Amino acid sequence: MKFDNILLKIEYDGTGFSGWQRQSHKPTVQATVEDILRKFTGRKVVLYGASRTDAGVHAKGQMANFDTEPKMPPEKWAAFLNSSLPLSIRILESKKVASSFHAQKMAVSKVYEYRLMQRSCPSAIDKTVSFFPRELDWEKIRSAMHWFVGEKDFKSFQGARASVLTTVRTIHRFELVKEDNGVYRFIIEGNGFLKQMVRAIIGTLLDVGMGKLDANEIPQIIAASDRRRAGPTADAKGLCLVKVNYSTLH
Amino acid sequence: MKFDNILLKIEYDGTGFSGWQRQSHKPTVQATVEDILRKFTGRKVVLYGASRTDAGVHAKGQMANFDTEPKMPPEKWAAFLNSSLPLSIRILESKKVASSFHAQKMAVSKVYEYRLMQRSCPSAIDKTVSFFPRELDWEKIRSAMHWFVGEKDFKSFQGARASVLTTVRTIHRFELVKEDNGVYRFIIEGNGFLKQMVRAIIGTLLDVGMGKLDANEIPQIIAASDRRRAGPTADAKGLCLVKVNYSTLH
Repeated sequence: MKFDNILLKIEYDGTGFSGWQRQSHKPTVQATVEDILRKFTGRKVVLYGASRTDAGVHAKGQMANFDTEPKMPPEKWAAFLNSSLPLSIRILESKKVASSFHAQKMAVSKVYEYRLMQRSCPSAIDKTVSFFPRELDWEKIRSAMHWFVGEKDFKSFQGARASVLTTVRTIHRFELVKEDNGVYRFIIEGNGFLKQMVRAIIGTLLDVGMGKLDANEIPQIIAASDRRRAGPTADAKGLCLVKVNYSTLH
Repeated sequence: MKFDNILLKIEYDGTGFSGWQRQSHKPTVQATVEDILRKFTGRKVVLYGASRTDAGVHAKGQMANFDTEPKMPPEKWAAFLNSSLPLSIRILESKKVASSFHAQKMAVSKVYEYRLMQRSCPSAIDKTVSFFPRELDWEKIRSAMHWFVGEKDFKSFQGARASVLTTVRTIHRFELVKEDNGVYRFIIEGNGFLKQMVRAIIGTLLDVGMGKLDANEIPQIIAASDRRRAGPTADAKGLCLVKVNYSTLH
């Protein structure tokens, strides 16, 4: 039997989901898509996602692949799934990739954005931006960001109950953009991220912005390999997986 | 009895509201805020909004004023109202203005934004952007926009069942910006807008972008003073009142 390996590009509003990964008795993005695939194909289908986004985290460019009998032309899976999925999940694209392709294992880098507004109340409109009610010194924040770039042991920025072989990750790029609507957007690209790592980095930078922490203390915090040394975990609402990069899809 | 005239800056997600203006048996933004004011003050309070946004239209900068006994320092009304309002409405600011000030009558200009994505499915995340599934020639759209700038009779772009003394309005500014997320944003500023006028202009421009209409036909469409000559009314979801300008608040 010949199988198609189908790669999906997925966008979702993470608000109502307990993250990407299937969990018992909780709504997750993986389970929502898998259940539709299972109903349609009559088989158990495993959807391999590039990134296990946490509860409340959004995605504009999650990538995930699954094996299936060739039930339809590969590019038709997007519209087919969209017709059954809730509106909070949209398949932006579907295509056939090499049978050896694996969306998570073959990812070269991932790009996340963290969006934040400095104001006293949450946005009435935008579900993908978090708010911070205190004054922030954005120049201090900017001056602290370079400490996170490069290959480092990010154990101090790993959430509880995570088990990984190594806590070393490489951050290739870390930028801060001010949108014209007053929203500050952090853009971070790395070869991988530990559980809650981006949010712990943002929380630490907010401590710097409030003057609770000096930018020059960050190397010591990294060196400590102790989660208690870094800042709090920033609100999941502001985080979005925007892109997963592959060297090749074949 | 001395009264305070309080001016509010209001943000709302229009999705769940039948527009700004109070209507019987329908949820509106005006009624939602007025009802809280009435319950708190024990009097009927009228909230004068700068703009009567339609059902589904959003606002980041609606302005509205009301008279009240001085129950609290003027700037405290924002937090007080936010504690009772649904999260889809946020008061961004409250301040005392001259007793003669009227948020609608004294508005000098209003700025609206219309955001649109060219793709085959709606956004899973952003409730303030509409989508258009067909190819659009954005250069043609851009070249047609200048026809709407200036003082014109916009009767061809007025929705049904509107009654106004004059259909002449002045558009001061009409710009098109491409956001870095692939969203196209129209920014339009005028001294006032007829019912559904912005959406009819956008619908007409989409006809131009699809090649159904030539940009040079727009002057004739305007001259016709006939709604049937212009394009369809674009989806309310993409429209947002971003700013109301006043020459002075006193």
